[in-house]
Amino acid sequence: MLFSNHNPIGIFDSGVGGLTVFAEVKKLLPEESVFYLGDTARVPYGSKSVDVIRRYSLANVSMLAALGVKAVVIACNTASAVALSFVQQCFPNLEIIGVIDPVVNYLRTRPELKRIGVIGTNMTIASKAYQNALLKNDAELDIVAKSCPLFVPLVEEGLFEGEITEKIIDMYLSAMKAKPLDALILGCTHYPMLRKAVYDYFGGKVEILDTAFHTAKKLAEVLTENSALNCGQKEPDRFFVTDSPDSFRLTAELFLGRKIENVFHV
Amino acid sequence: MLFSNHNPIGIFDSGVGGLTVFAEVKKLLPEESVFYLGDTARVPYGSKSVDVIRRYSLANVSMLAALGVKAVVIACNTASAVALSFVQQCFPNLEIIGVIDPVVNYLRTRPELKRIGVIGTNMTIASKAYQNALLKNDAELDIVAKSCPLFVPLVEEGLFEGEITEKIIDMYLSAMKAKPLDALILGCTHYPMLRKAVYDYFGGKVEILDTAFHTAKKLAEVLTENSALNCGQKEPDRFFVTDSPDSFRLTAELFLGRKIENVFHV
Repeated sequence: MLFSNHNPIGIFDSGVGGLTVFAEVKKLLPEESVFYLGDTARVPYGSKSVDVIRRYSLANVSMLAALGVKAVVIACNTASAVALSFVQQCFPNLEIIGVIDPVVNYLRTRPELKRIGVIGTNMTIASKAYQNALLKNDAELDIVAKSCPLFVPLVEEGLFEGEITEKIIDMYLSAMKAKPLDALILGCTHYPMLRKAVYDYFGGKVEILDTAFHTAKKLAEVLTENSALNCGQKEPDRFFVTDSPDSFRLTAELFLGRKIENVFHV
Repeated sequence: MLFSNHNPIGIFDSGVGGLTVFAEVKKLLPEESVFYLGDTARVPYGSKSVDVIRRYSLANVSMLAALGVKAVVIACNTASAVALSFVQQCFPNLEIIGVIDPVVNYLRTRPELKRIGVIGTNMTIASKAYQNALLKNDAELDIVAKSCPLFVPLVEEGLFEGEITEKIIDMYLSAMKAKPLDALILGCTHYPMLRKAVYDYFGGKVEILDTAFHTAKKLAEVLTENSALNCGQKEPDRFFVTDSPDSFRLTAELFLGRKIENVFHV
């Protein structure tokens, strides 16, 4: 790591979803300033080829590095799945964390959790990124994966609860309810906004594993291990987007539940 | 028009939505062969800038022109709104039709329809393309516009009817139901898949204006006026996509309700 402790943390996502990671980082590390880059002109990454996603991810990390961040979180499941080790090789002196490994590694500490559900977008579930990483840790796990394509538009409409949301949750997760899970991984950065609705759907009997929370925890560990926590003055947080700042601001305020400032078009 | 009568018709859209136009064209003009171009690698257009949409639209029309089409339908609301006259200027010898004008012109023949609803994506409604075109024809119209962002993902999940669909329709259209409309324009190429559900929601009392149908009718008129209808042999239909043919094929079969062949990656 080549940085000063007061340098900001960089987070990038293809769009707004990574703001759930931003929120967890701010909760866990309130003394840190964060630069968030949303590649909103090129969202969604999920339907694009591996080469293209690597190229975009490299551009995003390069920009954050140029802004002087001390660590980068890739808050995008698709980019974490296919571009993490590639950008790590390109920036050997920068700590770069994805959203998949932290929750998978956490499960190593909870060997009693055997029947694990994973939900995400079509692309994330089809990539088997979570399933393969989980089985590599513990080949005995019983994994049930399900893509839930309506969850992202539901969240972007602000429908975090209510009858429509409950019925859509039931449509996707009734099979997981029929044969109870020990834990469910929310494998998409939008899904923490549905956390309470999903938790309630399972009657509070399934442990909900939020990748945003576990990623923020991993970041805190890495900064602590490297004596890199901020202990001095703090810059204001900044948001950089590749398309219209206005539409980003609207959705961002929905995600964060507060007004935001410092949104820049890049 | 520079073509032979047996040349195909070209249709392009940013993705799969334009297949509703494809279906109407095939219904109305069964003797014609159609080349469909879905720019699936760059979908959605709605969030992109005017310059970029014009550039993409020009590339799409150029490709269809190179394939020898005798006319082009822009089956994408965003591209119809911002790029139609631009590509018409670039290809003065090619008939190019968008999806907005045909339904607007149809309403000129139905002056008794005064209170008109328009539904579409966020971008289409915000662009006011339908609203402005309607008011240009008849400044006395009472227009109610509403964006329905969950309709596209609903359609792509195959949820054309049922409880979830009904509740989402009610969420968006209850205000239009409270003060009855004379007609409702489905201002998005995906929405004809919800036509029956929307019609039933209004108790069959609102005339549903399907842009896909009116666009196909306009195309038939243009071909007839130019004595350009096919009267000989017919090539097979072809589908060209800029991203994975497999995922296009899946959604296309959902839209068309039948197996499709001849899907090519370009």
